[in-house]
Amino acid sequence: MTRRSAVPPPVTAVLDASSRWLPARLGEVEDGLRGAIAEHGAVLGEDAAATLAAGGKRLRPMLVLLCAGEAGGEAAIRAATAIELIHMATLVHDDVLDEAPLRRGHPTVAATSGRARAEAAGDLLFSRAFGLLAAGGDSRSVALLADAAVALARGELAQRHDAFDLEIGEARYLQRCRLKTARLFECACLLGRDDPHLRTFGAEVGLAFQLLDDVLDVTGPPERTGKASGTDLLDGTVTLPLIEAAASDPGIREVDLHGLDAAAAEALCERIAATGALERVRSRALEMVAAGKRELEAADFEPEQRQLLGLVADGVVQRYS
Amino acid sequence: MTRRSAVPPPVTAVLDASSRWLPARLGEVEDGLRGAIAEHGAVLGEDAAATLAAGGKRLRPMLVLLCAGEAGGEAAIRAATAIELIHMATLVHDDVLDEAPLRRGHPTVAATSGRARAEAAGDLLFSRAFGLLAAGGDSRSVALLADAAVALARGELAQRHDAFDLEIGEARYLQRCRLKTARLFECACLLGRDDPHLRTFGAEVGLAFQLLDDVLDVTGPPERTGKASGTDLLDGTVTLPLIEAAASDPGIREVDLHGLDAAAAEALCERIAATGALERVRSRALEMVAAGKRELEAADFEPEQRQLLGLVADGVVQRYS
Repeated sequence: MTRRSAVPPPVTAVLDASSRWLPARLGEVEDGLRGAIAEHGAVLGEDAAATLAAGGKRLRPMLVLLCAGEAGGEAAIRAATAIELIHMATLVHDDVLDEAPLRRGHPTVAATSGRARAEAAGDLLFSRAFGLLAAGGDSRSVALLADAAVALARGELAQRHDAFDLEIGEARYLQRCRLKTARLFECACLLGRDDPHLRTFGAEVGLAFQLLDDVLDVTGPPERTGKASGTDLLDGTVTLPLIEAAASDPGIREVDLHGLDAAAAEALCERIAATGALERVRSRALEMVAAGKRELEAADFEPEQRQLLGLVADGVVQRYS
Repeated sequence: MTRRSAVPPPVTAVLDASSRWLPARLGEVEDGLRGAIAEHGAVLGEDAAATLAAGGKRLRPMLVLLCAGEAGGEAAIRAATAIELIHMATLVHDDVLDEAPLRRGHPTVAATSGRARAEAAGDLLFSRAFGLLAAGGDSRSVALLADAAVALARGELAQRHDAFDLEIGEARYLQRCRLKTARLFECACLLGRDDPHLRTFGAEVGLAFQLLDDVLDVTGPPERTGKASGTDLLDGTVTLPLIEAAASDPGIREVDLHGLDAAAAEALCERIAATGALERVRSRALEMVAAGKRELEAADFEPEQRQLLGLVADGVVQRYS
């Protein structure tokens, strides 16, 4: 495989700019993911296995491969596959809880095969990830990935803990995003190469990714993002667009998130958008990407590697899904 | 800590027979488990954290420590803690699915803190286990544990796949038990020491453990097992007592498991017991334990180590919960 027709534009930009080694290795990561899932296709349900194998922007694997560079070889491919398996596992487990029928427009494992099989499937993907890394004999990588996975779970716990609480401020929000999202981006970079600049780069890009995700949840449209707008509000998740909007329209803080239905959530999305909060959050995300890219300047890289990492970082805030 | 007052009789027998090093190390495992959970006590819910930290027979850690022997040191303690964290993680995830209010007579994480937090808590325990092993720099152990965790998830998938199917025979049942239970016992022994005799010992003892679990689900009583009898039947899980009973009372195969309520499940339990199936399954479990202990004879052990492992194996079939 060289390149999938369904890859989103930011990924295409990176692939177009890169020399041959990157697409070839991303292809090997796809093969690895497909292999890990296909074995269990019969029980996961064909649709679900196909969704898992085909979906996603593969940003984390791309960060691993690009930070490792061409010399990264098999170890980088293994780490790239493992980190995407962890990401998939958390998505499968999220869908168990949310009983989400669709992800990226395709049926979820939970919807196709039931919550019980999705629960086990998530555990399986988790374990495969660690097994794959350990098979390479690389304890440092296992420890990095395990720490990031712990952070992820802690972020998820924090999010559920804070749900429906409109007193949540920016600091707490950012702390949660660091755990829930940025740490895995950071881990992707460190799996590629042990370099403090890359840690900061990954953290900034990961935070920017989450900020944009939260903007997209308010703006929709569903046919681009693959889910209805206002999903976070319906779950009681207080995100930066809401916090920012409440700063200029304090009446928003009086809304009872528990009482929202889909129509009320959409109305609240419009009210948030009317405050200009989305532009402000988007600029924050752009600043984070810029800060991340400055770290790249300080790292010792081939020019092409730096350029491609910059494109990935840009892609994080240029996406529509 | 030397010894907990709440430990079940088989464990007490082992501790009473052992020299000082085993209780001391089990104490260190307890500290490790408590540490891994306590950090998250606030979000897990105090009750749930206490249940996780206090409950259980700690059979898997005991197998790790005993197979490693006194020379096992810190590495064995780490592995013993990690394998129990994996076991706990799967229990927490099971409770998410079953929405079980109680485990071992205490409220589950899912009941205390909700399914969402239990989901994340399970993921967290999973990741902590691998992180702990990796911190010791031991890739072989990580790979062993990851493979066992994959088997566990596959066993869970197989069980859900086969649910309510009275055509399930003994071979398929045993295969599922191997994945769901025996592989983790096997892994415990191999984490302690790399020896093919111990692999077989662990596998036999693990299978026996599951057979007895399935007998206890039919016999109850709830005040000893901590759960109502017939839970497996209500979940549609076809176990060896049911398969054995149907062999002498074929009418059992006509029962529609989907239509069972608690009273009907209890009646079916009595019907299974009336066939003598429970004694037959219990003897099978005893034979497995005997086969496991023969493997111990072939392994190169201190006499005390062999004796204690034998006591653990006996305990597996002498328990009432």
